[in-house]
Amino acid sequence: MRAVTIRDNTLVVEERPDPEPEGGELLVRVRAAGVNGADILQRRGGYPAPPGSPQDIPGLELAGEVAALGPGTRRFTAGDRVMAVVGGGGQAELALLHERAAMPVPEPLDWPQAGGLAEVFLTAHDAIFTQAGLRPGERLLVHGAAGGVGTAAVQLGRAAGARVTATVRRPELRPAVERLGAHVIPPEGFGEQGPYDVILELVGAGNLAENLRSLATGGRIAVIGVGGSGPASEINLLSLMQRRARIHGSTLRPRPLEEKALASRLVEREVLPLFETGAITVPVAATFPLDEAEAAYERFEAGGKLGKIVLLA
Amino acid sequence: MRAVTIRDNTLVVEERPDPEPEGGELLVRVRAAGVNGADILQRRGGYPAPPGSPQDIPGLELAGEVAALGPGTRRFTAGDRVMAVVGGGGQAELALLHERAAMPVPEPLDWPQAGGLAEVFLTAHDAIFTQAGLRPGERLLVHGAAGGVGTAAVQLGRAAGARVTATVRRPELRPAVERLGAHVIPPEGFGEQGPYDVILELVGAGNLAENLRSLATGGRIAVIGVGGSGPASEINLLSLMQRRARIHGSTLRPRPLEEKALASRLVEREVLPLFETGAITVPVAATFPLDEAEAAYERFEAGGKLGKIVLLA
Repeated sequence: MRAVTIRDNTLVVEERPDPEPEGGELLVRVRAAGVNGADILQRRGGYPAPPGSPQDIPGLELAGEVAALGPGTRRFTAGDRVMAVVGGGGQAELALLHERAAMPVPEPLDWPQAGGLAEVFLTAHDAIFTQAGLRPGERLLVHGAAGGVGTAAVQLGRAAGARVTATVRRPELRPAVERLGAHVIPPEGFGEQGPYDVILELVGAGNLAENLRSLATGGRIAVIGVGGSGPASEINLLSLMQRRARIHGSTLRPRPLEEKALASRLVEREVLPLFETGAITVPVAATFPLDEAEAAYERFEAGGKLGKIVLLA
Repeated sequence: MRAVTIRDNTLVVEERPDPEPEGGELLVRVRAAGVNGADILQRRGGYPAPPGSPQDIPGLELAGEVAALGPGTRRFTAGDRVMAVVGGGGQAELALLHERAAMPVPEPLDWPQAGGLAEVFLTAHDAIFTQAGLRPGERLLVHGAAGGVGTAAVQLGRAAGARVTATVRRPELRPAVERLGAHVIPPEGFGEQGPYDVILELVGAGNLAENLRSLATGGRIAVIGVGGSGPASEINLLSLMQRRARIHGSTLRPRPLEEKALASRLVEREVLPLFETGAITVPVAATFPLDEAEAAYERFEAGGKLGKIVLLA
């Protein structure tokens, strides 16, 4: 198979041995695989794949057809369209994944949408519902809402009956995020539009003080990205106490199979039906052939996109 | 009635009009009322009582006999021994409270124990179970464990099957906290004894960085006191993300009646039976007559005590 490979902090696309499925695993003929911030970090040498995943083939999410079944599998058959979060190895023509991490692809979705869905929708759903416990009627603020996780979170919040506010730095991207169901504002002075019950932080610690000040009593902050303004900040714990608030931090990638499988079952039950009806979608900013992975990563890093960058294998 | 009264940041004990119970309220002949950190702050002018509570009579917890019933009460009858968290006004011969905030006094407890129970056991129970979700077998770290909330938390964690570690600054208090069921250590280098699943922070933000470093995957920090080292700290959100951890902040006093009533029902069901059997107790460091409230507050501020300072009315 051909696979994107990280060598000395650069990407090459080269021939690799075909993997073979073991107990409970599916071999998937990958059709599409989204690019995520973790891939960018991993290429720089900063975010190694968890044990058991390919160490030098990036790619945290994929979609494709089941090509072969390992012993003891029972959820899918050959030819089924599946998508999943994987610990790595998604950006290749073939990938292995445990069948309990796989989800069926909703019928209305094409390959680029399916290949860019799993990581961002699992991440957003886990953060705003499983962790932060967003409830109907609550006010959700999504920071950095034009990206993959941001567009997912805006749509999920809206579909759950929350009132969604979103910060988007680039003016030209704001109308599209408005159309996804958010009241869109610039990042500067976002606290004046509060208070918020749940804040999804995708940008960094630079927002933390204003996040806390604009949080309602009983509010929750879910931090799942700090690439924009970095990880370090001052915090006033009295401010947290007075609001009876909490701050969650999370990443999806290092979780064990059982936790990823649980999160996938929740997404199957609570999110995939929304794709079937067309209530939500996966915005795809651009696609690139697997051979142009380097260009795709450059496009991802350049920012200013709405939604996902997806590789087609 | 006679009541402790805050006037120009000092305490006087003076005659005040007897309060009269309204719908749903109990008039309680107070026998004992614990001193808490909030009283100290309020005397300095820094922590006003919530609306609806006496503004100048301190006291967040009390125990005594029901002296009169307001219209529509049904949970207690005259003469019943009750105890409760109140928004203020506990340090007086008579106090009003809503019957849904009141709990029956377990038979083995004397007045000083009952008067020093409600605030600290509700606070500790809410923080480590309702917020932090402590589970049997988990490792609980209690900072500042010799005080009222600390001794409550150590006992509750132990009774729930957690493995409890406690920091106690003064060496002479450590054996008594050991006897309550904790592995007791000095505050310096507490992180080396981790990792911990739940950390109860009663001291301040000075511990935050080491708390985070010593937290297990999925760990929770509950911050309910910052009087020791203050509220401000640096925080590294990447550290929170990598541990998939969360930080709760909370105070009990400003909560509305319905939340305090819910917390009281949980304590009735999950904690009071432990007093009935003698599995846990309320350590009382010293009692003072109501007229010596000033001396009681000084004793509280001096520190170096095990458990509660309680006023007897």
